[in-house]
This record gives sequence, structure tokens and C-alpha cells, in this order.
Amino acid sequence: MFDKICVLGCGLIGSSLLRAIHKKKLAKEISAFDKSKDVSLYLTKNFSFNVTKSIDEAVKDSDLVIISSPLSSYKEILLLIKSSLKKNVILTDTGSAKKEINKIINNLNLEDVNWIASHPIAGTEFSGPEAGFAELFEKRWCILSADKNISKEEIKKLEKFWVELGSKVKLMSFEQHDYVMSLTSHLPHAVAYSIVKTAINEDEKYKNDIIQYSAGGLRDFTRIAASDPIMWRDIFIDNSENILEVLNNYSKNLDEIKTAIKNKDGEKLMKIFSSTKKVRKEIIKAGQDTDKPGFGRK
Amino acid sequence: MFDKICVLGCGLIGSSLLRAIHKKKLAKEISAFDKSKDVSLYLTKNFSFNVTKSIDEAVKDSDLVIISSPLSSYKEILLLIKSSLKKNVILTDTGSAKKEINKIINNLNLEDVNWIASHPIAGTEFSGPEAGFAELFEKRWCILSADKNISKEEIKKLEKFWVELGSKVKLMSFEQHDYVMSLTSHLPHAVAYSIVKTAINEDEKYKNDIIQYSAGGLRDFTRIAASDPIMWRDIFIDNSENILEVLNNYSKNLDEIKTAIKNKDGEKLMKIFSSTKKVRKEIIKAGQDTDKPGFGRK
Repeated sequence: MFDKICVLGCGLIGSSLLRAIHKKKLAKEISAFDKSKDVSLYLTKNFSFNVTKSIDEAVKDSDLVIISSPLSSYKEILLLIKSSLKKNVILTDTGSAKKEINKIINNLNLEDVNWIASHPIAGTEFSGPEAGFAELFEKRWCILSADKNISKEEIKKLEKFWVELGSKVKLMSFEQHDYVMSLTSHLPHAVAYSIVKTAINEDEKYKNDIIQYSAGGLRDFTRIAASDPIMWRDIFIDNSENILEVLNNYSKNLDEIKTAIKNKDGEKLMKIFSSTKKVRKEIIKAGQDTDKPGFGRK
Repeated sequence: MFDKICVLGCGLIGSSLLRAIHKKKLAKEISAFDKSKDVSLYLTKNFSFNVTKSIDEAVKDSDLVIISSPLSSYKEILLLIKSSLKKNVILTDTGSAKKEINKIINNLNLEDVNWIASHPIAGTEFSGPEAGFAELFEKRWCILSADKNISKEEIKKLEKFWVELGSKVKLMSFEQHDYVMSLTSHLPHAVAYSIVKTAINEDEKYKNDIIQYSAGGLRDFTRIAASDPIMWRDIFIDNSENILEVLNNYSKNLDEIKTAIKNKDGEKLMKIFSSTKKVRKEIIKAGQDTDKPGFGRK
């Protein structure tokens, strides 16, 4: 598909991309760069592709460059690679917030660069290159966003790339992406971090109980609250406007439940709880979760 | 173990108990009662134990009576069975809140009845007798609570029953049970219901997006928000005091995150997110969740 693909940042997502590109034979040449020496060493030991010592070397002659590092690192990376980018390269990423990043890239006035943002809705609670696997993107959505000046042909090329990795692709504006994600991903993370913090802030005397009896609900939230702190710090800062808006709506809904509990208003509680029951069925129907009880975990 | 065990209320938990008691041969005779005709019909069709038409008949001569119906039904059930209970029977339940129920039972002044509350920390997001399975209680905790006048011998007997079903047993006061559960189970449910409600309250225009792109976090919460509405209405009303207290603590933690987002305070966010990461490891170490990425779901 491409003569050379380059992945910058090789944690869970980046290393999964490398594995998948290699497995599916999507490029004649694959290059990888990570600023961490430990990550580079891990990749060199375990894979045959070219793990470069300099970022320029990785980027040089690449037809597709994928940035797969925390959002806060993009600006520095872009300034470093700007002069090494091949003419008409497709530049993409895997970040979870888009609007601010798009501003940064537009301000850099990159010439002859096809910037098309990617967001694979895929991941686990684990981080680092050893957590990656080639099948991570299979049956998952990948959202692409691009400005109007980008040719449809280039977008098709990137779309085909993700489809080869097993993903389903959706085009969305940068703004729509950030709004939808604030509801489906960023709000759930803010809430999960808060709830786990509430539980662990309790008296030392209950700490063991909280761990032991977490199967009644809390354990589900601890998975999300175990996600990479750097990645999430950056998302909350980049998409702060949307997140604060949906957090306010969320607080209103929580207050409604609080009031119903205070008033022992069973009818109101029933109404709320019945309305939320349907959503899961629709998510399962859309192929976005398992229908096995308790996620099918053992 | 017992000559006759009776299960009152045969949904997910009750029918799982019936299956497990039958499979492990814990009683010479098993009787079951459910006020729903559909449930009774399902049980009669699928199992060999005695599904009675009257609640008295089910309870009569039983050495162990297990109430496994919503908390709001206990009072009515207890008044109905009061005169049919065998002398020195062990009366237990499977409810998720204890203090209010204990008050109700104490007010009934039952004579020669060993009331020992049980709470198996087990369940799925599915309801009804067809969702039950005999292995539901395996490797799960079951919390027992009893007043001081109950003999240790009777408690041991009930403890042994749960151990036979594969559970680990912990003794706790009614009050401690309700407080710990408000943190590990009731708070997560209140939060999950609120977050799913927030997502579905959005413009019709985004509804499909929210379903499709739920894999970034939301889908995990929809599982809990799909739990039985009646059961949860009753828990929130019975344990309202504790739940409101932990909801207030939770709101404070959420406000702290909100403020950090508003101020783009990366350092503060990192500190919060790093503190919550550890809890998951402890839960996995305690055998209370899988260590497989994404709960190991496919």
C-alpha cells in the first residue's frame, strides 16, 4: 500500500500499529521512533523493522507518517520533523482530541503535506509497547477528520489503510469528533477517576473492604481509571471546553438522582433507571460490546 | 446439608441459587415460589424441584428460607410466611442493603427464627430466571450479618452453605455492610445511571454517534446502567443516608477535577490520575477482576 510507513511514539497504540502493518504487509519499509530508550530497546529486540535513533531518519522518505504519542508532544515533534517530511506525505495521528491539534498544525503552514487526523476508538487499560497487539483495531471504529483543502483521493488512501487493519472508518469534522468523544469517552473517564478517588480517599480502616468487595460495581470503573495518566491529562486539557459542558449536564442528572433519593421518590428513580437500560441493547446491536454477562469475564 | 431449602423470588439470583443447590445436592428437598406466573412456569418447565403455587407451601418445613426478591417486597413476604416458618429455621436473604431490612424484621418479633442476612456480591446485568446459572457464586464474596442473639452455630451452618456454593464468606455488622456497599456498589450504580442518562439526553442528531463510538469508555457504564430498575430503586431508598453521604464526597472529587480542567492544571490532573491507577492492580491481586485487557472481551 505504501512504500514506507513511519510510526512516531510506540506505546500501546503505536506498537499495535507497527505489529499490524507488519502482519498485514502494508508497507515495503517500516520505520519507528520513540524518544524513550527502553521502548526503542524493546522494539529492536522483538521486531525486525527499523527502529531509528533519530526522528528525521524515521520520517525521511515516508509516504505515511503516524504520530502516536501524547497530544502535548505533537508541537515539538512537528517542529522536529517539518523539514524531513516527503512531498505529498500523508500525515496522521491517533489522538483522542482534534480541534486544538488541528489549530497547531494549521499554524505551522506545512507545505505539500496532507494532514488527515485519525482516531482509532481502540485501546486497553494497559500502556507501553509490550501491551500492544496486531488485532487491536479489528472491528473498531476509526474516525478521520480533514480540512476541505485535502483531496478525497488522499483521504481514501488513509481510509483504505485503516480498513486493512480491520477497522470501520467514519469521516467527521474536528469539532464534531471532539464533542461526540467528550460524551462517549472523556466524560466516562472523568467520572471513573472521580469515583475511584472517592473510594480510596476513605478511612484506612475500610481500604481492604473496598478492594475485596469491589465486584458490586467499583471494579468496572477501576479499569478505566487505570488508563495512562499522561494521555488523559492531555485530552482533558485539549478538549476542556466540551468536557466542562458535558460535565455540567452530567452534574444536573446526578443532582436529579440525588433529589429523588433524598425524597425517596421511587417512581422517579424507576423512570431514570428504565430509560438507561435500553442503551446497552443498542450498543450490543451495533457490535460495540459483548452480550455476555459481566463482559464474559471469568 | 439441609432437609428442605426454600427460595422465595426466583429471578437471576434466586434461580441461580436453585440451580446451585440442586447441582451441589445441598438439600433433600427444594421448594421455590415466585409471585410471577411466567417465572413459575419457566421454573416448572425447566427444573425438577417443587415450584409451589402458595408461598406457605414453599416455606412449610423448610430448615433454610432464602428471600431473593426486591427489598420492597420483604415486609409483605414476611407477614405472609410468619406463621408457616419452622421452629429454629434459618431465615436469610440476598439483598444489597441491610440496616432497614433488619429493622423491619426485628419489629416483627419473629419467635424461634434465626435471621442471618446474606449478601452474595455476585450478579450480572441480566435479570429473570433464564439469566441464572449455578456458578454465579463461585469465587465471589458473600457477606453475612446477624444480631448478637443469634448463635454462632447457626451462623456457621449458613456460612458452610455459601462455601459449598463456592463463595468466600465475611461477617460484617449491618451498618458496616451498608456503608462499604454504598462505596463499592451503590455509588458506582448512581454514577453509571447518571452518565448514561447524560449521553442519551443529547440531541437526536448525535444519538447514533453515541451508540457507535461508545467503545472509548461509555459502553462499560451501560452494563451497570442496564441492571434491574426495581432492585436498584429499592437499594437507593433503603440505603439513602449512606448513598447521599458518599455522593457528596464524590461530587467534591469531581469538582476538583473540573477545576483542574478549567485551570488547565496538568500537574494536578497527573496527580489524581496516577493515584487511581494503583487500585486496579490491588483488585486484580485480590482476585476480584480479570487481568486481561478490556475484561478480556472479544
